[in-house]
Amino acid sequence: MLKKAKILETEFGIEAMQRLDALALFSEGGEGVTRRYATKEHRQAADLIQSWMRDAGMTTRMDAVGNVIGRYEATITNAPALIIGSHQDTVRQGGKYDGAYGIVAPILCINELNNANLRFPFSIEVIAFCDEEGVRFNSTLLGSRAIAGTFDMGGLENSDAIGVTMKEALLEFGTNPDKIPGLARNPKSILAFVEIHIEQGPVLEGQNMAVGVVTAIAGGTRLSAKITGLAGHAGTVPMDSRSDALTAAAEAILTIERYCSQRSGLVGTVGKISASPGAVNVIPGEVVLTVDIRAGDDELRRKAVDDIIPEIKALCQRRGVKLTTETIHESDGCQCAPWLMDQLDAAVIASGHAKKRMMSGAGHDGMAMEHITDIGMLFIRCKGGVSHNPAEAISVEDANTGIQALLNFITNFKTQTQR
Amino acid sequence: MLKKAKILETEFGIEAMQRLDALALFSEGGEGVTRRYATKEHRQAADLIQSWMRDAGMTTRMDAVGNVIGRYEATITNAPALIIGSHQDTVRQGGKYDGAYGIVAPILCINELNNANLRFPFSIEVIAFCDEEGVRFNSTLLGSRAIAGTFDMGGLENSDAIGVTMKEALLEFGTNPDKIPGLARNPKSILAFVEIHIEQGPVLEGQNMAVGVVTAIAGGTRLSAKITGLAGHAGTVPMDSRSDALTAAAEAILTIERYCSQRSGLVGTVGKISASPGAVNVIPGEVVLTVDIRAGDDELRRKAVDDIIPEIKALCQRRGVKLTTETIHESDGCQCAPWLMDQLDAAVIASGHAKKRMMSGAGHDGMAMEHITDIGMLFIRCKGGVSHNPAEAISVEDANTGIQALLNFITNFKTQTQR
Repeated sequence: MLKKAKILETEFGIEAMQRLDALALFSEGGEGVTRRYATKEHRQAADLIQSWMRDAGMTTRMDAVGNVIGRYEATITNAPALIIGSHQDTVRQGGKYDGAYGIVAPILCINELNNANLRFPFSIEVIAFCDEEGVRFNSTLLGSRAIAGTFDMGGLENSDAIGVTMKEALLEFGTNPDKIPGLARNPKSILAFVEIHIEQGPVLEGQNMAVGVVTAIAGGTRLSAKITGLAGHAGTVPMDSRSDALTAAAEAILTIERYCSQRSGLVGTVGKISASPGAVNVIPGEVVLTVDIRAGDDELRRKAVDDIIPEIKALCQRRGVKLTTETIHESDGCQCAPWLMDQLDAAVIASGHAKKRMMSGAGHDGMAMEHITDIGMLFIRCKGGVSHNPAEAISVEDANTGIQALLNFITNFKTQTQR
Repeated sequence: MLKKAKILETEFGIEAMQRLDALALFSEGGEGVTRRYATKEHRQAADLIQSWMRDAGMTTRMDAVGNVIGRYEATITNAPALIIGSHQDTVRQGGKYDGAYGIVAPILCINELNNANLRFPFSIEVIAFCDEEGVRFNSTLLGSRAIAGTFDMGGLENSDAIGVTMKEALLEFGTNPDKIPGLARNPKSILAFVEIHIEQGPVLEGQNMAVGVVTAIAGGTRLSAKITGLAGHAGTVPMDSRSDALTAAAEAILTIERYCSQRSGLVGTVGKISASPGAVNVIPGEVVLTVDIRAGDDELRRKAVDDIIPEIKALCQRRGVKLTTETIHESDGCQCAPWLMDQLDAAVIASGHAKKRMMSGAGHDGMAMEHITDIGMLFIRCKGGVSHNPAEAISVEDANTGIQALLNFITNFKTQTQR
């Protein structure tokens, strides 16, 4: 029997925060948490996660790509699994909660079920995906892609910043990369994939809500743009004789900002910029920048790209500089399954909170898992919308609420065919 | 007797181009010319320049800081000198003409005078200054400052990119840095300093003119500006919840451009920019950029700085980001002497060209020489206004015209008291 009284307190939240603090100690150094794929710190985190899984009554293993998988068996053998999980890796100088919370939360749920001796007709697997952020080898969703059968084996030859290939890193880490293709799961063995994650944005906080159910993971287009003008001496070229690549870039940046600000559900960001030659006394002759455009609605995003590029091209032409753009990444939005959203809504309401649906602007492992199963996501509020930053924070109360809701979801889970 | 016929041809220009090509061979490698202070290439260039000086009837020496000085004696002994010169050093991957032309041109003039057996009541010194660009030790005008008595002996401890101090470099180069203070010239030994230089800008070309007389070397203010916003996830933070440091910087860049474009004689440049954390999917939380503002008129420049900074501060406030600025360099404008400008005008007209006066937006050795003598400058047209670039170019005809004008100036030179 579940100890229902606990649901009104913050016991889950306090325990979660202690575990998240413990995981955060496995960091490569510097401010915040830096835990990249296939590092010593990844191994340390995996060992701790596996010990928690075993304590919660799960069998555990690390697979060939580096995912940690804990399985809580059903009342019957070989029952298909509800998979719940998130990623163990972080960005450089990231926070304690992005990814990690989505591993700790389901483990605490299973621990609670195990203590109450509760099992279901379905098994539950908790997965700590090895690499979602893609910091080390510049390729994201490695763990979930392996399980979804979409892992790119060619990526094993990619090198990290110091020239170590992914293949070499995995051999050193202690797994056998040749076995990655064998990790692809049979869709029939999976009932659904659900992830709980911090919002990484300010929407819930702005509406004073603790949890939200995700409707879709936004699609994104990433462009690299190069503006070529003419470098010149900062003192000798009159203003009306310049072909300044940076002033053109500045106008482009404001164009993107204005366009996206005028359309709900659309965001556009220039995150990287470099100006060459890059001296205080030289007019920039070349600027390279990135553009990241996202929307839950693929049409809205495609139209934004189709509108913005010609607008920037026109301003470059007017300024006598040249624009070239290249699409470096494009992914369509990924829809969450209505039947899972409905059950997640009910779980949120059962935890004493209002129903809230929202888009995820960030990418998540669900994007890969969606190839083999239906997905659902639950967001919890984070402080100031700050993420990918040492200042990332969540409250004990919200950590607790997320776990309560997830536990409600699990205990009331009906498979799609059961509904 | 001067061969007047030559003035109508391009013989000087052809000879100058050959010598400039020869000097350009002494380069550290890569595209264009890289000849830094106190290097093997500096020594090779100095040797060639000294041989040309000797052939032109001058006595030559290298001083303790590395300047090459050729002296063409007067009709009387110990006569004060009209000093003409420019710098031997280049920026990295610079051109063949910046500096070098101002050394070759007066040597060809003296050669012509020597062939014609013409001497004057004043001596003429040609100086190939050792380091005007300041590339190696990040400190400009080293050669002219030594002669003007404003050399900073503390700078001898500055290191280059591989950790060699200026003092070590000079000992290795073969001069005695302890003797630099003794290089300061007695102002009474100097009548004037005149430099001929490529324009490094597009003004003469734009007006279809070959030569111009400089009225002033622009003063400059350089600022470093830091804009601090809040880094955030490019997908999860709605446009209206952002504190994007880069969109604020973009608006600042366009503010500077607009302000300077509206005022004649003023130029403003953002040459360096960096955005942190600098990832395609992260809203920039911090941007650092440089601002370079110049004008011949110091009042105009000071007012520009005083107007622009509050305007940028206001836009940052409106955007919820913070601005801090620091003045990293400030130099007042340096006026050319009217009596020298008049004589240079006359020399230009005598060479068959129209009078043209113009500002120098770039710094030159005259800024240091002005501490001990009156200065004058002559600019010749360069292609497309391009300089500090391997593509730097001048025409044979313009090279010829500059030398003709300089020769006219020398042969008709009247000291300030003689006028």
